[in-house]
Amino acid sequence: MPTQKLTLHPDRALPVDPEQRRIAREIYAETAALPLISMHGHVDAAVFADNQPFADPAQLLIVPDHYVCRMLYSQGFTPEQLGVPRVDGGATEGDSRTIWRRFASNWKLFRGTPSRYWLEHELVTVFSVEDEPSEETADAIYDQIAGVIASDDFRPQQLLDRFNIELISTTDPAQSDLSQQQKLAEQGLGERVLPTFRPDSVVYLDRDDFDASIATLGEVSGSDVASYQGYLKALRERRRAFVAMGAKATDHGHFTADTTPLPEATAAEIYERRLSGGQLSVDEVNAFAAHMLFQMAAMSCEDGLVMQIHPGVLRDHHSATYRAHGQDKGYDIPVAAEYTRGLRPLLDAFGTDPRFGCIVYTLDEDVYTRELAPMAGVYSSMRVGAPWWFIDSPEGMLRFFESATETAGFYNMSGFVDDTRAYCSIPARHDLYRRISAHYLSRLVGEHRLRQDEAVSVATDLAYHLPKLAFRV
Amino acid sequence: MPTQKLTLHPDRALPVDPEQRRIAREIYAETAALPLISMHGHVDAAVFADNQPFADPAQLLIVPDHYVCRMLYSQGFTPEQLGVPRVDGGATEGDSRTIWRRFASNWKLFRGTPSRYWLEHELVTVFSVEDEPSEETADAIYDQIAGVIASDDFRPQQLLDRFNIELISTTDPAQSDLSQQQKLAEQGLGERVLPTFRPDSVVYLDRDDFDASIATLGEVSGSDVASYQGYLKALRERRRAFVAMGAKATDHGHFTADTTPLPEATAAEIYERRLSGGQLSVDEVNAFAAHMLFQMAAMSCEDGLVMQIHPGVLRDHHSATYRAHGQDKGYDIPVAAEYTRGLRPLLDAFGTDPRFGCIVYTLDEDVYTRELAPMAGVYSSMRVGAPWWFIDSPEGMLRFFESATETAGFYNMSGFVDDTRAYCSIPARHDLYRRISAHYLSRLVGEHRLRQDEAVSVATDLAYHLPKLAFRV
Amino acid sequence: MPTQKLTLHPDRALPVDPEQRRIAREIYAETAALPLISMHGHVDAAVFADNQPFADPAQLLIVPDHYVCRMLYSQGFTPEQLGVPRVDGGATEGDSRTIWRRFASNWKLFRGTPSRYWLEHELVTVFSVEDEPSEETADAIYDQIAGVIASDDFRPQQLLDRFNIELISTTDPAQSDLSQQQKLAEQGLGERVLPTFRPDSVVYLDRDDFDASIATLGEVSGSDVASYQGYLKALRERRRAFVAMGAKATDHGHFTADTTPLPEATAAEIYERRLSGGQLSVDEVNAFAAHMLFQMAAMSCEDGLVMQIHPGVLRDHHSATYRAHGQDKGYDIPVAAEYTRGLRPLLDAFGTDPRFGCIVYTLDEDVYTRELAPMAGVYSSMRVGAPWWFIDSPEGMLRFFESATETAGFYNMSGFVDDTRAYCSIPARHDLYRRISAHYLSRLVGEHRLRQDEAVSVATDLAYHLPKLAFRV
Repeated sequence: MPTQKLTLHPDRALPVDPEQRRIAREIYAETAALPLISMHGHVDAAVFADNQPFADPAQLLIVPDHYVCRMLYSQGFTPEQLGVPRVDGGATEGDSRTIWRRFASNWKLFRGTPSRYWLEHELVTVFSVEDEPSEETADAIYDQIAGVIASDDFRPQQLLDRFNIELISTTDPAQSDLSQQQKLAEQGLGERVLPTFRPDSVVYLDRDDFDASIATLGEVSGSDVASYQGYLKALRERRRAFVAMGAKATDHGHFTADTTPLPEATAAEIYERRLSGGQLSVDEVNAFAAHMLFQMAAMSCEDGLVMQIHPGVLRDHHSATYRAHGQDKGYDIPVAAEYTRGLRPLLDAFGTDPRFGCIVYTLDEDVYTRELAPMAGVYSSMRVGAPWWFIDSPEGMLRFFESATETAGFYNMSGFVDDTRAYCSIPARHDLYRRISAHYLSRLVGEHRLRQDEAVSVATDLAYHLPKLAFRV
Repeated sequence: MPTQKLTLHPDRALPVDPEQRRIAREIYAETAALPLISMHGHVDAAVFADNQPFADPAQLLIVPDHYVCRMLYSQGFTPEQLGVPRVDGGATEGDSRTIWRRFASNWKLFRGTPSRYWLEHELVTVFSVEDEPSEETADAIYDQIAGVIASDDFRPQQLLDRFNIELISTTDPAQSDLSQQQKLAEQGLGERVLPTFRPDSVVYLDRDDFDASIATLGEVSGSDVASYQGYLKALRERRRAFVAMGAKATDHGHFTADTTPLPEATAAEIYERRLSGGQLSVDEVNAFAAHMLFQMAAMSCEDGLVMQIHPGVLRDHHSATYRAHGQDKGYDIPVAAEYTRGLRPLLDAFGTDPRFGCIVYTLDEDVYTRELAPMAGVYSSMRVGAPWWFIDSPEGMLRFFESATETAGFYNMSGFVDDTRAYCSIPARHDLYRRISAHYLSRLVGEHRLRQDEAVSVATDLAYHLPKLAFRV
Repeated sequence: MPTQKLTLHPDRALPVDPEQRRIAREIYAETAALPLISMHGHVDAAVFADNQPFADPAQLLIVPDHYVCRMLYSQGFTPEQLGVPRVDGGATEGDSRTIWRRFASNWKLFRGTPSRYWLEHELVTVFSVEDEPSEETADAIYDQIAGVIASDDFRPQQLLDRFNIELISTTDPAQSDLSQQQKLAEQGLGERVLPTFRPDSVVYLDRDDFDASIATLGEVSGSDVASYQGYLKALRERRRAFVAMGAKATDHGHFTADTTPLPEATAAEIYERRLSGGQLSVDEVNAFAAHMLFQMAAMSCEDGLVMQIHPGVLRDHHSATYRAHGQDKGYDIPVAAEYTRGLRPLLDAFGTDPRFGCIVYTLDEDVYTRELAPMAGVYSSMRVGAPWWFIDSPEGMLRFFESATETAGFYNMSGFVDDTRAYCSIPARHDLYRRISAHYLSRLVGEHRLRQDEAVSVATDLAYHLPKLAFRV
């Protein structure tokens, strides 16, 4: 097979029908150049604060991207063959060019996936690659990317401008001392790169990292976390510190959406039993996590942090990979989700409180019409989040709009969040969302269900204004 | 922004592709003028019987429509601001023009929702409004509607002709004395406005209104409802009275689709314990409701009333709104539904009985292909109901056809039901259904999966003949 | 109504948009003539081995096809009226022409269903029928088909060539003596018609046919199945015998996807209690079935048989039909399925084992994006199976591609399996799949998400190469 050129069609991801495409093009043209609001991200704060050059093409684009690695695992590659570090420090592939070749030779696996879209977009617009990845082109592309990376223009901070990022959030554990944010503030980036408060490791009492996390929380907050009251005080203190560093939101990756509060005495007893080395049942662990979700909402009413809830994932499904390589290695698998009953205590207490805002995400698409849109379409404090993770994709976004809009309306949505740790994919992700929202809206216009001026207004809101409104920026 | 004209495009909700649109237009043209069969409705029987003029635009179109109110709540308006009455008689907004302005100024919230479609249709075709609602146009539109409402041609009975309604059902509690229906019969409308038997408040033993409902049931039926046998006798008597007044169907809004019968002695003991003031567990309450669903099916075999089952809603999700304003205020949220096991006892007993007919609705779209279409596609007594409530919408109806048709076929569907208490929206709802069924069918024709003459036949059946067949009119 | 001609449009099931249709045509043209790989089928091995002529049109196309019969039941026909045999040998309609007329007169019931597509395809391409079935045409069509059936060219073995079937699997109980396969081998068809090992009746300890099945298993395997170890030995022996006869796969129709292994002693105790006539709880029966699914995976690692799992059906929903007519009569209804937790033990143990391969099917479409695609998209041993049974349909297949591709990619799919006992429908089913995959791919191409040469490659893989890869042929 001769080498194929890699090109980006100007109409990619827009509808085929000529009239609908014309409308979609006109809508997209109004949003394409808007600045990026990236208020739910997972790029490490230190990447921005240190502003070091990226290592090499494989370490930038393959090894840390679990979307890419999981597709290669699915065809028999091992984490070791892709250079994914081992917890025990054991040997893995150390030659980045070899890793890159493995990826490039298997380009066809990504057909029909959003990774393909994002990677193409990055390769062409960020790295000026001209050929499709393949066994034959792997080395030349590797060299091309390596050359771009080496440029001083390609440091993380410089990319903020190049990528047209107006605001970006990192995700930081509750016990973070926010020293990276301090450095960023000193470099004048304190209002552009914002922390997000994520307390998962100190509310799930059975996590492997709970003890270390809670100890750090105690130190950093200066509160005695041996007692439940001291623990709550520590969380309040850290939330204040996050707010002071510009945080707008919290982030909660719970297994379920349960938000049932416990009687204070019960919560205190469970917490203190755990801290003093006692045993907890699985039910107690989950009940405490649900209780803390409710407490976090109560604290949000006090300090204004917008609460993000994204439940429904069974983490680390493959034990051997978890033991060898740790978390976030592509083996997190969704489960059926339930929100109507789960969120009821939280919404019953705070759902119409003007001080409170929450954004709820799902990986279970069945709940769009059944649960999330009906709740977001009535409770003033709740928004339905953008399609997330596996469903942050052309078809996933179309289904989201087709399912959620009719009951929630556009104005109870969060607008786009990119939710990625792959920094270079951020522009591609926002671009795809803007194309797909134009795609969906062009159908409403073409079917005379919305005027074109309204569609442009909605597209602009979804891309830019709604994320700011949702995160109260 | 200059005032936008409000116009209805003749091709609205039809597909964009020119060939498919041509086909859809031709199919729609064959159904557009068919009379409306509205066999599942919630307009109050007294509205027809009294035939009084409507109060004002806000009291007609905003305050009682929970679709409209909930969208305004979602953006921070309170029920009080929209004039929704309080249970305690406390103050709410009393100026209808102010309520109307709040609605008109927030017109953009309805973009992409079916409420937008229905309201546009009503404003243009019923009230001859020419401008889009907005802060600027609110007063003029209010006056325009008020003028139309004042006309003697705009009384509820006169609208039956204007709306081309051949048949309409009301929904009436089991304990209704049917005095409104008696009045209607005396006015010659007894065969056009039909009651529907809804026993929810006398089969859920834990409802707030159970005691009052059961007392009335006893009085109206002349049966001693202190005993379970007397209770069954009372229900049979009322069903006979409903049949005598033209009723064709019953309606059951259960929390689950469970239809497991209890041993008669157990059912009697639970019922009589409740009546004598004893305590019941939640499980007992639900088991009794399931038992009664089975009993209702048995009675349907005797008296021919078609049974409508629509489970899966957690009512009154927001306690404070329920306490302040009562039921049906927009805070009813669906939950995951299960029908395969739940309906089994009922279908096992009556599913192939020629005397029995049931129509099953869902708000959980996942069950279309998984449960409802497979059951409706084999049991002769069962039909799958039209998409209901939140999914009575363009996308919801398209998904319904795309999901249910292949397994159930068209001829095991109920055809359209509008399920509304918003009287003026009825023509809009039927029109939208006819457009969307033409939309879906035009794809089958365009893809050579159905001939056009067949599509016209199906569209006519869905709009007119199937509702009559389903309700055994 | 005048008699309608029955014709097959060359573009049927392809998209309406002219540009997309052009692309779809070109893709379809590349796959239309590929040989059929039919590795998951339910045609009886004896049909091939005996190679007898088919009885008559009704006995060939109506009576044994539960898709067709269930649609007729749904409109009030009884199994007896359609000639479906009774378990007690009681009378049913014996006149095949009468059965055929009942079907032909109700042709409109099949509008919009895949049965309509398959039947049209068969009637035109296999039987050269020229008129649409109807009351008027029933007899002439019956005679036409009867004439074709009578031809020596229309024997089952001859149809293998005519239908362009390269490979076909039968489904055979674990206890089969494989005598039919022996006969086929002797006729030179041993590498073209392959058995599939299906042990359901010997792993569900509460099945009506368990005792008979296990007794036969003991005899055929020569192992003492009174003990659990003897039972495992018998299963290993039969698997070896199946492999020797060309089997490539096993097939498991469990109620749930649970694969939790029991401690060996517990499994042995349950099994031996059952064999010695003791009582088991429902939980024990299900736990043992789950345990055996895990054991089957372990054995697949030894002998290389690819494991097919298709859970989630409540069989024989209508008791009276089951008692009168037995299994597989159209009353099997799906239930909600769960795979993430259920498959975890199996995937945790074997999910990255290169010796192991499994294909997982679903009837609950909600799990495509939520569970199956995420798992197939990372575990190297797992593929997501083609849409099955009720969702082996145009819309079902489109939803499958739209939902599963983005996370699983095409190369973690099984490609097409037809899963039918209706032999004459096999070419129609493969043809429809090829059209729908072209339909879906043409959208990706038209939206510039995939190049056309890639789409052709994918379509060819889905139709031909992936089924061979998935079944390790």
